[in-house]
Amino acid sequence: MPTIEIIGLIAATCTTVAFVPQVYKALRHKSTADISLTMYMVLFIGLILWLVYGIYHQSLAIILANAVTGILVILMLFLKIRHK
Amino acid sequence: MPTIEIIGLIAATCTTVAFVPQVYKALRHKSTADISLTMYMVLFIGLILWLVYGIYHQSLAIILANAVTGILVILMLFLKIRHK
Repeated sequence: MPTIEIIGLIAATCTTVAFVPQVYKALRHKSTADISLTMYMVLFIGLILWLVYGIYHQSLAIILANAVTGILVILMLFLKIRHK
Repeated sequence: MPTIEIIGLIAATCTTVAFVPQVYKALRHKSTADISLTMYMVLFIGLILWLVYGIYHQSLAIILANAVTGILVILMLFLKIRHK
């Protein structure tokens, strides 16, 4: 695999797993007052559209990265609404 | 422009501007206790790598989206460190 595609995969992994410590923090502290609900709602719309884009272009990297981030964002939305 | 590329542009716009309300909230409330520092650090590394990927592939959309998100993430890192 060309180096630049490995860089792309690492980039996608970073921008996806980045949300794990945020979900963990919200779960542990049961507090999301400083978290913007609007951010996670707009992000969710964007991720759905990226999924559509990835499915059309049959890009497994785009589909996988956005599906996983989407699940983490749904978790944050759930925690935000629960602990607001 | 094909519809799917317009969807891609709207997707990129959403996942970029999503951070604006979060920066605004952190600026207004001067509180970032619930925000994960690790999330924004890992996100920043990912965005830098996406920039490298975009520059290599000469993709203006990838470069622009990640540069703007990068600036917003730097702002969040600054606010997180300042108001922790």
